[in-house]
Amino acid sequence: MRIIVDAMGGDNAPQEIIKGCIQALETLNVHIILVGQQEVIHKELKKYTYPKEKVEIRHASQVITNDDIPTKVIKEKKDASMVVGFKMLKEKEGDAFVSAGNTGALLSGALLKVGRIKGVHRPALTPIFPTEKGCAILVDAGANTHCRPENFLQFGIMGSTYMEKVEAIKNPSVGLVNVGTEAGKGTDLTKEAFSLLKNAHINFFGNIESREIPVGNIHVIVCDGFVGNVILKLMEGMGLTFYSEIKKIFTKNPITYLSALLVKKGLKSFKKKMDYREHGGAPLLGIDGAVIKAHGSSNALSIYYTILQAQKFVDTGVIEEIRQNMTQEAKANEY
Amino acid sequence: MRIIVDAMGGDNAPQEIIKGCIQALETLNVHIILVGQQEVIHKELKKYTYPKEKVEIRHASQVITNDDIPTKVIKEKKDASMVVGFKMLKEKEGDAFVSAGNTGALLSGALLKVGRIKGVHRPALTPIFPTEKGCAILVDAGANTHCRPENFLQFGIMGSTYMEKVEAIKNPSVGLVNVGTEAGKGTDLTKEAFSLLKNAHINFFGNIESREIPVGNIHVIVCDGFVGNVILKLMEGMGLTFYSEIKKIFTKNPITYLSALLVKKGLKSFKKKMDYREHGGAPLLGIDGAVIKAHGSSNALSIYYTILQAQKFVDTGVIEEIRQNMTQEAKANEY
Repeated sequence: MRIIVDAMGGDNAPQEIIKGCIQALETLNVHIILVGQQEVIHKELKKYTYPKEKVEIRHASQVITNDDIPTKVIKEKKDASMVVGFKMLKEKEGDAFVSAGNTGALLSGALLKVGRIKGVHRPALTPIFPTEKGCAILVDAGANTHCRPENFLQFGIMGSTYMEKVEAIKNPSVGLVNVGTEAGKGTDLTKEAFSLLKNAHINFFGNIESREIPVGNIHVIVCDGFVGNVILKLMEGMGLTFYSEIKKIFTKNPITYLSALLVKKGLKSFKKKMDYREHGGAPLLGIDGAVIKAHGSSNALSIYYTILQAQKFVDTGVIEEIRQNMTQEAKANEY
Repeated sequence: MRIIVDAMGGDNAPQEIIKGCIQALETLNVHIILVGQQEVIHKELKKYTYPKEKVEIRHASQVITNDDIPTKVIKEKKDASMVVGFKMLKEKEGDAFVSAGNTGALLSGALLKVGRIKGVHRPALTPIFPTEKGCAILVDAGANTHCRPENFLQFGIMGSTYMEKVEAIKNPSVGLVNVGTEAGKGTDLTKEAFSLLKNAHINFFGNIESREIPVGNIHVIVCDGFVGNVILKLMEGMGLTFYSEIKKIFTKNPITYLSALLVKKGLKSFKKKMDYREHGGAPLLGIDGAVIKAHGSSNALSIYYTILQAQKFVDTGVIEEIRQNMTQEAKANEY
């Protein structure tokens, strides 16, 4: 399998991106195509020993930054690593594309350069995050701040497909984020979305309140991109606050240090369990190609896991399955 | 000061409600008027010794449950404890009204029976919650799932007034929840709200991402009631998940128990710091009377703190200040 990696995207590019690729080469059966400024990539690669035949460099002279305006930059910086990466994916020079760059540009670029799966109205940005019982997918986390009920239906189907295929969860449970659990709760939008999801070929649990999200009984969290963005970032923020408070407790004096030593194993496994990175990045579900957004602040480990995720994504045929489910759902709605 | 308390509202009514009132009488200089079924209240009160002259009972034969339809029940159950409580507040038989009952009914009842402060378009449900640096107010947490930009402006002003008066925070910082921090981010609604808030007589920080909320640099969190409800419940859920995971770590074996003993003080003060109850309930800001919603699952301690909050609310003249700020803002927008 050939994974195209944007060597220039993200806060820690190119160093951590390339380091993560090298780690991936050590354990995964993948070829990596690094896209970006040749000299910069060469210089980084020199730091490592790795199977040369498994790495390719594709030169791209320009770089998209976080200050660039998404829709504009995709058209203007034609030789940006991200744009070149998309073209390569479209032309099947690689099986998946991973980038930690400008999220808006990645969304615009994927739509413009790769396109949607037939039948999908709105692709979504769908991060996977840890829960008490495993993990869940958030559809949508920010690609669509305004949604129509049909979008929610497709979010449910796409998220369900991902969790079933990539995370191997049988019959994943789908929940619609709302202000209450009763069927009649919420806005006109959520009410209509509810009835569409209820009749879809998915395991629809119903409305959920956000307090259920971290518990983990629901595997697919459906909401519009505004609400999803708030959920994702609040979970991150709460996590950071908790860690910082716990750290304060344990680093107060020699006795608390001793206490930390006694629960070291438990703390470590808790931290590991709650580590976002191990679940990889956020796929752009609905795009007719495997595009995975790695976190902007990705380090080597995040990139490693995102490449692993890209590999599973391609191996399990998520896109083909979404295509089929869309056709099936469209037919069901015709009659 | 006379606090009217709905003795029949909430999951633990009347026992915990009345127990909380007794606790309040021990330390606060308040009179309590308990509204509800006389016999039930009498029976509970008999359990305690307390200054009899400071407690009054107002009989109300009916009870509003969580299954009742808010707008309907306020009109139909005319002798419900909540409805009677509102009437008493309106007729100045008491200075504030505290209830842990049906939130929707409380919102409807407050609007119908007490009314809005002149100039306020939409009252809001505004819980106070702990942050790393103290506490913050969320405006709105569910009263208005649909909002117009002017509502956000008023939310900012009302929240700011509350934090300045009741929590004694000078020049509280107001943030608009959005999907990014730049001024141009978000939906048409947030963009318009941004420009209104920017020109208001408040300390407007600008757009904030939800990861900033638990940190505590922003004291007034402005958003629509749908997003606010998601934020509030997700914070609750994350807190519960985190505690349950920490508990698992410490209760694993004798050694981890020992570890817990060594950081007992730190854990306790962390728990206290993050305890929602100490900040009281959620005022209904914009209502022309002090109405405070206690959490549905309130125990005696929550009720105690909600009564304390009601006392501060009245003492500091929040409503009069909001009235003045509304007039000032309306004038400013005329020219």
